[in-house]
Amino acid sequence: MKVKIICGQMPVIAGRPDLNYKKIIELIASAKEQGADILCLPEMCVSGYLIGDIWEEQAFLDDVTYYNNEIIKASDDMAILFGTVCFEKGKLNEDGRVRMYNAAYAAQHGKSVGGYLGRNYIIKNSQPNYREFDDARHFYSLQKLCAEEFAPVPETLQPMQLTFKGASLAVGLMLCEDGWTENYFYNVPQTLARNGADVLVNLSCSPYALGKNKKRNRLFGAQAREAGIPLVYCNCVGIQNNGKNVFTMDGCTSVYQGNGELATAAEMYGDTVLPFSYEDGEIIPECPVAYPAQDTEAIYKSLHYGTKLFLEQCGIKRMTIGLSGGIDSAVTAAMYVDILGPENVLLINMPSQYNSEATKNIAQVMAQRLGTNYAIIPIQHSFEHTVEQLENTPIINYTTNKEIHLELSELVKENIQARDRGARILAAASASFGGAFSCNSNKSEITVGYATFYGDICGAVAMIGDLWKHQVYALGRYLNEVVFKREVLPEEIFNIRPSAELNPNQTVGKGGDPLIYPYHDYLFSAFVENWHKATPADVLRWYKEGTLAKELGCDAKIIKSSFPTHASFIADLERWWKLFAGFSVAKRIQAPPIISMTKRSYGYDHREAQLSPYFSREYYELKEELLREQLRVES
Amino acid sequence: MKVKIICGQMPVIAGRPDLNYKKIIELIASAKEQGADILCLPEMCVSGYLIGDIWEEQAFLDDVTYYNNEIIKASDDMAILFGTVCFEKGKLNEDGRVRMYNAAYAAQHGKSVGGYLGRNYIIKNSQPNYREFDDARHFYSLQKLCAEEFAPVPETLQPMQLTFKGASLAVGLMLCEDGWTENYFYNVPQTLARNGADVLVNLSCSPYALGKNKKRNRLFGAQAREAGIPLVYCNCVGIQNNGKNVFTMDGCTSVYQGNGELATAAEMYGDTVLPFSYEDGEIIPECPVAYPAQDTEAIYKSLHYGTKLFLEQCGIKRMTIGLSGGIDSAVTAAMYVDILGPENVLLINMPSQYNSEATKNIAQVMAQRLGTNYAIIPIQHSFEHTVEQLENTPIINYTTNKEIHLELSELVKENIQARDRGARILAAASASFGGAFSCNSNKSEITVGYATFYGDICGAVAMIGDLWKHQVYALGRYLNEVVFKREVLPEEIFNIRPSAELNPNQTVGKGGDPLIYPYHDYLFSAFVENWHKATPADVLRWYKEGTLAKELGCDAKIIKSSFPTHASFIADLERWWKLFAGFSVAKRIQAPPIISMTKRSYGYDHREAQLSPYFSREYYELKEELLREQLRVES
Repeated sequence: MKVKIICGQMPVIAGRPDLNYKKIIELIASAKEQGADILCLPEMCVSGYLIGDIWEEQAFLDDVTYYNNEIIKASDDMAILFGTVCFEKGKLNEDGRVRMYNAAYAAQHGKSVGGYLGRNYIIKNSQPNYREFDDARHFYSLQKLCAEEFAPVPETLQPMQLTFKGASLAVGLMLCEDGWTENYFYNVPQTLARNGADVLVNLSCSPYALGKNKKRNRLFGAQAREAGIPLVYCNCVGIQNNGKNVFTMDGCTSVYQGNGELATAAEMYGDTVLPFSYEDGEIIPECPVAYPAQDTEAIYKSLHYGTKLFLEQCGIKRMTIGLSGGIDSAVTAAMYVDILGPENVLLINMPSQYNSEATKNIAQVMAQRLGTNYAIIPIQHSFEHTVEQLENTPIINYTTNKEIHLELSELVKENIQARDRGARILAAASASFGGAFSCNSNKSEITVGYATFYGDICGAVAMIGDLWKHQVYALGRYLNEVVFKREVLPEEIFNIRPSAELNPNQTVGKGGDPLIYPYHDYLFSAFVENWHKATPADVLRWYKEGTLAKELGCDAKIIKSSFPTHASFIADLERWWKLFAGFSVAKRIQAPPIISMTKRSYGYDHREAQLSPYFSREYYELKEELLREQLRVES
Repeated sequence: MKVKIICGQMPVIAGRPDLNYKKIIELIASAKEQGADILCLPEMCVSGYLIGDIWEEQAFLDDVTYYNNEIIKASDDMAILFGTVCFEKGKLNEDGRVRMYNAAYAAQHGKSVGGYLGRNYIIKNSQPNYREFDDARHFYSLQKLCAEEFAPVPETLQPMQLTFKGASLAVGLMLCEDGWTENYFYNVPQTLARNGADVLVNLSCSPYALGKNKKRNRLFGAQAREAGIPLVYCNCVGIQNNGKNVFTMDGCTSVYQGNGELATAAEMYGDTVLPFSYEDGEIIPECPVAYPAQDTEAIYKSLHYGTKLFLEQCGIKRMTIGLSGGIDSAVTAAMYVDILGPENVLLINMPSQYNSEATKNIAQVMAQRLGTNYAIIPIQHSFEHTVEQLENTPIINYTTNKEIHLELSELVKENIQARDRGARILAAASASFGGAFSCNSNKSEITVGYATFYGDICGAVAMIGDLWKHQVYALGRYLNEVVFKREVLPEEIFNIRPSAELNPNQTVGKGGDPLIYPYHDYLFSAFVENWHKATPADVLRWYKEGTLAKELGCDAKIIKSSFPTHASFIADLERWWKLFAGFSVAKRIQAPPIISMTKRSYGYDHREAQLSPYFSREYYELKEELLREQLRVES
């Protein structure tokens, strides 16, 4: 028996069952036309997955149910496997709300074919509750249902029986995390295989993260091999967000042979279908494997895709970017020109007396090379007016009836400049130009709050907010070399030392950012991106043991040359840890949404409370030991 | 046998095991001095509960473990029951990280007494994963552990056996949610009672929410009655936050007799202990019940407590408040004067040409009555400069080489004024005065984004961000009548129609906010605070059935008089729903932290994605029906 299967790698629109249903009906019609026996559609393809607490709206659930039934009816002459949410009236979730399952239907001949525990759908067993996922917040797991119905999970996980020309095909149907079995007690795919599945089908709504594709290929290939049967991974495309983070669903729908080999795969981010056949335990591909982009190419593609769709969803057609002459705003500007076209981008250079001719010139040259809209709007007058007004306005104390005056420190004056640019000029100019303005902060700055509230950490979206400074540079090179194929970012940008240019001692040529990016990028990454997050205790232990550069993945020489003494290393570590675990959290709480790239982006993916920074007992011991050692060496 | 029990209602500091341990040691010493046989300490009293993803830091967990053991050792001549986190090396959580349990120790004679499944601690079974809680994100539940060890949950839930003078006391120990049994499959307290507990002890870390105390008394009283044994509820005080929301833990430690009656209770928000005795199944109280505050008094107390502690934790000693002459800033200003003292508060009135003499006068009078620091800093010059600069600066298009100019709309000009106040003046003035500035937005405005990005929805904390407009007015009255006992808020504030005063048609006397608070407050509350969230379909169904006012809990006349036709009612509903489910989400993503008061505050308690607003099928049907009916009536 040969069965033709089509995976519909559709762009799911979160929170819009009406629009998703329309797309699904088109996919069904086209799959039927192509003679498909089975159409696979991704997890949560009717509702979308990341929709916040909309799951608590009954009218929304009712609509999803209505469309579920319409899709089932459309399976008259073709089987449809699709992921969706199912709710059960009369049963309650643990929080007292209507009980919902992250579920999937196997529908054929206009009816659903089987399901678990008397329901006509299968239920996700492994619930992700890490990173941006909150499955347990909304959905009841198969494991909990089995416990309350006194049914063993392994016996419940039965394949769905489809029939084609009198012969039967047992489909081991599962949802997303059910396939990521590494640390769950129940291994869903192997259980389905043991229970007689001919083929495993994993319906997913899986976001892109740097390096994730490789891991999935390794894991899913191994599963197919262990089970000895093919595995179909059907993922969606599109974007979904949780407020603070915008995730791109990268598609990369993939089919693995029973020996673990990748047989065919759909294009990354493609609004496309993947057709192939199953015959006697083998996958017969129709298309070659579309290998996904890696490294900087993947970052470029994901940022482009994610930002474009996010702007479209928000109805933003034009963007205004503050262009300082530094690398972050340059990369951001070039990306927006690439996404929206030069006619829809407005670049504004906003000099004060501290801005160098070098950076002002770079900004102008870039705007010319990009052929975009450009304005120079100085902030000097407004800055001086603000300082003058605040220092000269009397403050009366109505208890003592005495007058006081404010005195503005250098730091306050620096922040006035940043806010004058962001909240005074960019916010108003972008509203008049149309659309919104951009937040150009990168992950290194966001980590330690090296940014001004309502100054530069503001705007509609932080496109490069999940990229470390070295990744921003790499993306800049990629834009010149591959995307624009000419030097839209002038070479000087890559060579000048980054500087905020907010006071006389801090301009290009005179003094730059306090961050040593070739070290701090990697240190900060260990704080937030390591699966087992590093703290000062770990860092100091590695430093003492001489393994720090290896553990962080950075150049050993930069550490040695930057910190001549233990004391200087420790002072630097404490300075940034206190900011990372302290005040910078306040800035992140009010930061714009970030397009997520790594496996931990700030916001909903890396959750944090505003607390006082903590140093552990081990840290204090190591610190004392090292400082004692330094004293000994020095004396 | 008479057993003296002391509940230590301690202010837990989230993320600071070092400081909490210090407090615990003090409590242990003092309880021993008072001759206690048992000291109860709250859930997560070593670590704190809401600490974001700090749970992923091994050095933090190691310290908690160290302090756990020190506390156990201190139980030499007094039993100690305390909630904490325990991790299990060698076992993994489902996400691959070290496995952690939300756990509690029963320690006596310097050792832990029993525990579940071979561990020397008990494990929380019911995990809250709603509102601000994410237990499943971090902790492995008893139910999951039982499944993997093939142990039935009901047989695992055994009481801890303590011994006093040769006699034994079986303590049914549980953690917080284990006591809120309404919708969980396993009823932990009744199982513990069935398994022989003499007394139930619930260690909690439970935040305040309006009305929650009443519910807990009802629920916990009923549990004690059903079990026929006393129940001890030991809660902490202090604040904890999840970034977007600051929660106050209200204490209210309570002890119920076996007949369900409340025997004794500790003061709301008191850093105190509750001593009592247990003898032959009876509680012998030492203190009368301290009844918690209700309604506006409770709001005042909770806001005061939460804001004070939050500022202390952030190191903020002074606050600057933009004082418009309206109710929101007036209430906020009076609260800060109450919390910090008039010498530490700076009120700034920032008039433009559109501000009325009435509001300017109110602001000045208020500052005088509060005896605080006051300044008038006009924004007119800066506003005009910004408009002039943006309209006159040429924008060059580097593709066409043509120049364009921006034209600023009325709306853009309004927002320039708001941002001039917030991001230009308040941000800089507060940084110079010391401390931070206040966000004065209320929940009604935040619901629909009736606020300007970086203008008024900015600042260190939104103190009244979880209060509806009518609650703000009630708090204003309370401040005058009870707190200050004189008219610090001039009577006019309660009578003028609220207005943003940002354009010539929108000033006090001429035209006010577009919100009809006596209706919209209640409508919006149904959108977000109803346990089963209301959507336009529900609202229109209730409207059609004539039950809307009853369902919303508002005055029926206001609906009738505000919306003469179905069409006008529908237009209003759609207008606000589109904002609530659409653009206002973007504003909330970048909003300051909110002090949580209700059972759904914006932020982490009510989670949301930035999506396009959705209207359900039922909604469109009802709308069509009503508009048809209107046409029929009109024709």
